[in-house]
Amino acid sequence: MTQEKTFLAQDRYFGPSEKQKNIALQLYTQVADLPLVCPHGHVDPRMFADPDYTFGTPTEMLIIPDHYVFRMLYSQGIPLENLGIPRVDSGQVEQDYRKIWQIFAENFYLFMGTPSGIWLKQELYEVFGIDEKLTGESAQAIYDTIAAKLAMPAFKPRALFEKFNIEVLCTTDAAHDTLEHHQAIRDSGWSGTVIPTFRPDAVVNLGSPGWRENVNKLSDAVGYNVDSYTNLVHALEERRVFFKMMGARATDHAALTAYTGELSLQEADAIFQRALKGKASDEDATRFTGHMLIEMARMSIEDGLVMQLHVGSFRNHNPVIFDTFGADKGCDIPITSEFTRDLRPLLAKYGNDTRLHLILFTLDETTYSRELATLAGHYPTIKIGPPWWFHDSLNGMQRYFEAIMETAGIYNTAGFNDDTRAFPSIPARHDVWRRAAANWVAGLVARGLVDMEDASIMIYELAYNLAKKAYNL
Amino acid sequence: MTQEKTFLAQDRYFGPSEKQKNIALQLYTQVADLPLVCPHGHVDPRMFADPDYTFGTPTEMLIIPDHYVFRMLYSQGIPLENLGIPRVDSGQVEQDYRKIWQIFAENFYLFMGTPSGIWLKQELYEVFGIDEKLTGESAQAIYDTIAAKLAMPAFKPRALFEKFNIEVLCTTDAAHDTLEHHQAIRDSGWSGTVIPTFRPDAVVNLGSPGWRENVNKLSDAVGYNVDSYTNLVHALEERRVFFKMMGARATDHAALTAYTGELSLQEADAIFQRALKGKASDEDATRFTGHMLIEMARMSIEDGLVMQLHVGSFRNHNPVIFDTFGADKGCDIPITSEFTRDLRPLLAKYGNDTRLHLILFTLDETTYSRELATLAGHYPTIKIGPPWWFHDSLNGMQRYFEAIMETAGIYNTAGFNDDTRAFPSIPARHDVWRRAAANWVAGLVARGLVDMEDASIMIYELAYNLAKKAYNL
Amino acid sequence: MTQEKTFLAQDRYFGPSEKQKNIALQLYTQVADLPLVCPHGHVDPRMFADPDYTFGTPTEMLIIPDHYVFRMLYSQGIPLENLGIPRVDSGQVEQDYRKIWQIFAENFYLFMGTPSGIWLKQELYEVFGIDEKLTGESAQAIYDTIAAKLAMPAFKPRALFEKFNIEVLCTTDAAHDTLEHHQAIRDSGWSGTVIPTFRPDAVVNLGSPGWRENVNKLSDAVGYNVDSYTNLVHALEERRVFFKMMGARATDHAALTAYTGELSLQEADAIFQRALKGKASDEDATRFTGHMLIEMARMSIEDGLVMQLHVGSFRNHNPVIFDTFGADKGCDIPITSEFTRDLRPLLAKYGNDTRLHLILFTLDETTYSRELATLAGHYPTIKIGPPWWFHDSLNGMQRYFEAIMETAGIYNTAGFNDDTRAFPSIPARHDVWRRAAANWVAGLVARGLVDMEDASIMIYELAYNLAKKAYNL
Repeated sequence: MTQEKTFLAQDRYFGPSEKQKNIALQLYTQVADLPLVCPHGHVDPRMFADPDYTFGTPTEMLIIPDHYVFRMLYSQGIPLENLGIPRVDSGQVEQDYRKIWQIFAENFYLFMGTPSGIWLKQELYEVFGIDEKLTGESAQAIYDTIAAKLAMPAFKPRALFEKFNIEVLCTTDAAHDTLEHHQAIRDSGWSGTVIPTFRPDAVVNLGSPGWRENVNKLSDAVGYNVDSYTNLVHALEERRVFFKMMGARATDHAALTAYTGELSLQEADAIFQRALKGKASDEDATRFTGHMLIEMARMSIEDGLVMQLHVGSFRNHNPVIFDTFGADKGCDIPITSEFTRDLRPLLAKYGNDTRLHLILFTLDETTYSRELATLAGHYPTIKIGPPWWFHDSLNGMQRYFEAIMETAGIYNTAGFNDDTRAFPSIPARHDVWRRAAANWVAGLVARGLVDMEDASIMIYELAYNLAKKAYNL
Repeated sequence: MTQEKTFLAQDRYFGPSEKQKNIALQLYTQVADLPLVCPHGHVDPRMFADPDYTFGTPTEMLIIPDHYVFRMLYSQGIPLENLGIPRVDSGQVEQDYRKIWQIFAENFYLFMGTPSGIWLKQELYEVFGIDEKLTGESAQAIYDTIAAKLAMPAFKPRALFEKFNIEVLCTTDAAHDTLEHHQAIRDSGWSGTVIPTFRPDAVVNLGSPGWRENVNKLSDAVGYNVDSYTNLVHALEERRVFFKMMGARATDHAALTAYTGELSLQEADAIFQRALKGKASDEDATRFTGHMLIEMARMSIEDGLVMQLHVGSFRNHNPVIFDTFGADKGCDIPITSEFTRDLRPLLAKYGNDTRLHLILFTLDETTYSRELATLAGHYPTIKIGPPWWFHDSLNGMQRYFEAIMETAGIYNTAGFNDDTRAFPSIPARHDVWRRAAANWVAGLVARGLVDMEDASIMIYELAYNLAKKAYNL
Repeated sequence: MTQEKTFLAQDRYFGPSEKQKNIALQLYTQVADLPLVCPHGHVDPRMFADPDYTFGTPTEMLIIPDHYVFRMLYSQGIPLENLGIPRVDSGQVEQDYRKIWQIFAENFYLFMGTPSGIWLKQELYEVFGIDEKLTGESAQAIYDTIAAKLAMPAFKPRALFEKFNIEVLCTTDAAHDTLEHHQAIRDSGWSGTVIPTFRPDAVVNLGSPGWRENVNKLSDAVGYNVDSYTNLVHALEERRVFFKMMGARATDHAALTAYTGELSLQEADAIFQRALKGKASDEDATRFTGHMLIEMARMSIEDGLVMQLHVGSFRNHNPVIFDTFGADKGCDIPITSEFTRDLRPLLAKYGNDTRLHLILFTLDETTYSRELATLAGHYPTIKIGPPWWFHDSLNGMQRYFEAIMETAGIYNTAGFNDDTRAFPSIPARHDVWRRAAANWVAGLVARGLVDMEDASIMIYELAYNLAKKAYNL
């Protein structure tokens, strides 16, 4: 306890005033031990399908798969090869994981004041019991401690899942996915709830890398040739049935912009045929995605799957890194987004149908108060997703609460999701949100805007219940 | 007093630190009882023309006319029909006002932390003496209390106007308006000052619903056929003379964007002729409005009426609601705005003429520090209007102060206006502003940026005098 | 000391909570007396070349050259002629400097809560010992005090440079500049370090006023006719060699947007030839600048000069003021900026080359968290410059820290620069930054995000070391 107070203060992240801190701690305490609801993330379901799964070395668990971490190191001139990031050509990269760990530890000061720094510190302390600072000096001893823990049964994914008190964990899966790991989890008799999410981007966004192969995989999955727009729609509908049968509650869609616009069947098929011939233009791709989003809204109305839409990430911005190391290497950079005009065709058609549940995510914080809060504060179909990606941070959350809640109210938001591949970081991420939410509500109490009775309801909703309701979990 | 402390704290909305709270309360106390200057709003002048006017039931006063309120209920899936919102086809909607009130009360928790929640709580307490929370349980008793008060002479609009200590109230009136209610107020001998504002959008914005009818009404008002651009300009000039004679101090202009650009007389008339034939394009409408804004600036220079320009609202975004219930039903959604390039033609022509007083409003907060503060900190003609619509809130005001005042200084802003149809909410709205302003200035004092002598001047200007000066009231 | 406490509190600008204030004061004290590193500014090198240089009257020092000051006075309707601003036609303007000073003093209240107000108050107190408020009453006495001081040897620029503890001061100089004043400083044996910065905008931006004359001046400087694109590139390369020899560590580039895009040699020359004939279009100018920025990045890789890029200022927005008084008269207004797509061609080519050091500045704060922090948190070539121009303020800095640091970390930022022409204001400007930085770091400590050991490192980096490293000083 004394240890906790010095290394990781109980009232951390609260403030600025003492009054707010005290109220925040009181509210946080009410929700700190609630189960974790994880409605959107990228954890590999194999972890839970294979009872013997291990995370490998500390470096394989914490550095190599985490682009939040290695993008910062790269920004300071450390080559990705030196960090063991695999090359697409299987060329030589550092294989000495202790050496990589040493580089990481010596540069850990780069993360001062960043969310990655906060998550890592808390994860190392709470999951692995590390109560000293990660530096060049402490690097190898800390490595040893983590490695020893990882060899223990209590650090298998299923054990951690239970220790973390995860109520439900949703993965993200391609439209063609066999969901074999999800099946294996079900078959295993293990009690943890891990369910898939239907993400058809790879066949819907014509310009995405490997589109043609993904259409072939979809054809294999449905057992017929997806060679027309009509077939594509049928195939997606069938796969949604399968995903739903496997427990899915939601779909997920990424697009460069929120553009929506309906095509005639003829137009849609003409574009699809051009794409099959490798001749679709950028405009084709934009229009096709814009049409398919409306189609996906229709399917959601029919089958009840919650529809998530993430926009505004310019993927693979750095061609040198993409060519050498592939996608998801920290090179996705946000652009401005627009929802008011772009979403209007979809909303004009389905925006008043209360069977549709559309959760919107943005990387452009200027849309919070201007567009998202005002849309969600009117349309019964819209909920606002939590602060996304780079904005999943203490300041990002504060800006989110302050810009959105006055106009939308908390009940038009979708609570929190951790959106992570880094399974052991999940408790730290939810804890940051719960603390940030408690602190925001405490600020309302301290300024006489809500009383403690309402504040207790608000923190319960924000910390736990809103996510559960928004995703029908 | 003890009651007030528990139900509505005297130092509410101040903070976060104790020091700032104490200074804020001191500053607020200096201005809390100053008269209310209301230079821009949408209160119906009939309220004051007819000494027997009543607000009807609590539901007719607080829910049915207030789209801030029913948009939130609609966003959670409650049909507008259930809330008694009249349909344009006069179809069946709920007529049981107690039942509507019950729905409202049961869902009042949706407004936790929102400005509507704050206004309503304060209005119910300070105007109607309600000191318990509005819930499903308390709903009917509170309804009874309000209804009983509304039946009393002290709750007639004129009595409330005097109780509220309103120094002047400006209404908003179409160019063709006869201003008969304003005339009746004058003729009545009542001492309250209620004056009109000239708002010609309905004939200037060619694409606005009912444009042709409004041109006809303008023709009727001036007694000749407004069948050419030249006639339109003459008609508007004549109506401005009439409005000025009736006490108007300002005009008001809404546009989708701040685009300005001069047309030749020939071009302007050609567009007007196309509009009369129902053949004006969207581009015609944009260019015509952009030209007319420059013309309006010229007229303001000549007749001294202050010119207000509001931009960035995409009106009637939800076609289903617009078709069923009409305009102003909570479906106006903001878009991005641009002032630097768009206003340049107007400013190049009239921006240095100190006879022009141009007050700008935005729904795009990104323009605060980037464009509005920098323009107002240079051009002698520009003042920045208060945080508008969705941004008329505690956080909205704080962002406004922090983003604008460093570059523009307080003297290039236009104080506060309540911009409301909801007459009984006026004191609550001004109180929120006065408290937010006191708290902002207190923050400057607490951080050693201004001394108490300057702080007292600043709060007086912000709470009262800036609005009065900006509108020549 | 007591005096200081009352007139200028030691803990000024810190807060809001007492805890944060105390930590901030502790951190600030650690760096308050560190030397000033001034890597970017517009101080005239003649000040230090001529040992007899004087600042003239208080009005000539503080009002006439400072567009931050007179733009605010102009915004309230005071003609620039009345403030002694010289006309381009040498027409009559006020020559009575005491009268101008009186106007300034009577209107000094306009600067309440503004950075100019803060800087002036602190400068008057700390440099000139003025410990009373500047008002109409105190105006002439304060004028006398300043004038008396300015006549003393201790108030010569070199003496102030030493008193201010300036470690290095970088000026900004045109590509054709002979750097004669820099040479004179070197020759004088004076110990102060004043070095040039290479700014070729006047010949690179084809649309800039006087472009043709500036090309001629460049021709004179290199001794051959700059009559082709190839010659231009050669000339710029030669001048960079000269600037480097004279101590330059950096180049500086201003552009309306961050657009970059490579041209073929043929295209580049065709545009240059059109420009020589006075026939370059706006699009030509945009494309040429976009190409030259990539060329400049190449040169920086080759010669090691740090590359600065400032975008988003619409210069000379007010044509009446520009025609009457010329450039830099407070009429430059920001526009929206875009970096993700615009910089991609440059970054695709050179973004991974660690020899390139590219420092980016923006006037569009929405790009902080969306684009700049995410780019700088990945590309090893990018550092983010300090909050620029209108955002060089307490709130501007706070927004900068909060929006950028979580994603970029402090080590991808370039510390502070004062960017000023107003030499005597330099200590005040750095002090505001050091206080704002100390307060931000103190907030992290108060909320348990960093410990005091890390906080001490962070404040040292922010206050002093980051700027030094970013500019190789």
